[in-house]
Amino acid sequence: MTDEFSKLALPSIPFLDCQRIVLCRPSHPGNIGAVARAMKTMGLVSGAQLYLVNPLCAIDEVAVRRASGAADLVTECRIVQSLAEALGGCTGAFGMTVRARELGPEPLQPKAAVAAAKDHWHQGGEGGALSAFVFGNETHGLTNEELQHCRAEVSISTNPDYGSLNLGAAVQIITYLLREASGNQSAVDSGATRYASLLATVDAVEGFYKQLETALIQSGFHDPNRPRRLMPKIRRIFERTRLESDEVNILRGIISALNAAQKVD
Amino acid sequence: MTDEFSKLALPSIPFLDCQRIVLCRPSHPGNIGAVARAMKTMGLVSGAQLYLVNPLCAIDEVAVRRASGAADLVTECRIVQSLAEALGGCTGAFGMTVRARELGPEPLQPKAAVAAAKDHWHQGGEGGALSAFVFGNETHGLTNEELQHCRAEVSISTNPDYGSLNLGAAVQIITYLLREASGNQSAVDSGATRYASLLATVDAVEGFYKQLETALIQSGFHDPNRPRRLMPKIRRIFERTRLESDEVNILRGIISALNAAQKVD
Repeated sequence: MTDEFSKLALPSIPFLDCQRIVLCRPSHPGNIGAVARAMKTMGLVSGAQLYLVNPLCAIDEVAVRRASGAADLVTECRIVQSLAEALGGCTGAFGMTVRARELGPEPLQPKAAVAAAKDHWHQGGEGGALSAFVFGNETHGLTNEELQHCRAEVSISTNPDYGSLNLGAAVQIITYLLREASGNQSAVDSGATRYASLLATVDAVEGFYKQLETALIQSGFHDPNRPRRLMPKIRRIFERTRLESDEVNILRGIISALNAAQKVD
Repeated sequence: MTDEFSKLALPSIPFLDCQRIVLCRPSHPGNIGAVARAMKTMGLVSGAQLYLVNPLCAIDEVAVRRASGAADLVTECRIVQSLAEALGGCTGAFGMTVRARELGPEPLQPKAAVAAAKDHWHQGGEGGALSAFVFGNETHGLTNEELQHCRAEVSISTNPDYGSLNLGAAVQIITYLLREASGNQSAVDSGATRYASLLATVDAVEGFYKQLETALIQSGFHDPNRPRRLMPKIRRIFERTRLESDEVNILRGIISALNAAQKVD
């Protein structure tokens, strides 16, 4: 990070609002609807973020139905006559291709492209800078001329024997990565374990081990003279869990119940 | 890292071949087709990797058409009567949810879940270990009971105002991440838990719960008519640990010993 960079104000417009999806000559209204839905689920919520360049189909009822709750993006999308127009105001322009072209622009993996879009946004200062992800026609992809308008070309890795990624699916992957890069985390955060009660104290857990060991000796399962590393192995299981105080109570209750039955013998 | 662990061979079966997609009660044939296509484009190429648990719709022409070049996955998928059956042989089981449940299993972000699946695979030794990503019904998601069978729950972050991620789209994102993870064949990432024996299969862990529940009923500690959420609470303790196969044996031995003493009464 350069000094100049660190001095830039963080843009006041959220990252996701600065991303645009451009479809060149789409030919199936259902795909346009699927693209709208993919965008909205990932937080690209405005029709002004969806550009159609010379669509080859009507934007009809099929598109609206497939968009489901994202129908507003379909009805309010921008329909333009040239890719240059769709890229107006953007600093980033990423052309999606199945494989890198000879003499094409810089090839990037999807993650690197999204990271580049984040850099563009951040370095756009207060207003943020716009980036566009440009998708070609379902059958023919982007033309070489269209690709020349892009500043990088991006390929999603697919099965070499079956790379037929649906247009909506490709947009879903890119918008997922954009959302991930935006830093928006869901309620389920960072893999941290949620607790239902306070963590048990060391004393409480030791009390459980002591009680269990006694029960195991009484049952004949554990012989302290031939310990076979049993207790360390048991500790290893429970130390991984970070037991809560309520859980220690449950485990102690289980041992008591089973052990009480034994004492009747 | 223990000596035993470092001796594990890299699995000879590719990572992607060890991943399974499980759809619980899917209700739209089109979605099943879209799931098949998403899988195949990302390199999950066998019908034996797609499980349908009690599908609510016919697997018909609509499914086949939507699958496009992945129709073979639709015609060769496994249709089963229970989630337990679909998870047979798996060590990893990741339940996809919109939001984390109370007393649910460990919550993970998609990337962390895929990294965990990679760990499972690697630590499965020569044969690799299987993981399943479990998706609920389109309208209702996974039931709490279904989720209890999973060893972690995974939520894809979505727009809080419109989180309606299509089933095919959700599978596309997960399989994209699986494919991305497959490229990085370098062993276990730093910070991963080290194992002394192979991870236990879901079946083995379920067998332990069943045995424990029976013993608790016999001892009078657990009344199935007044369950007090005892079994979910117990599952929550052990699902956090990722039990190894040797550990399941130790735990089962403990229950047997205590329970045998009881039977003498």
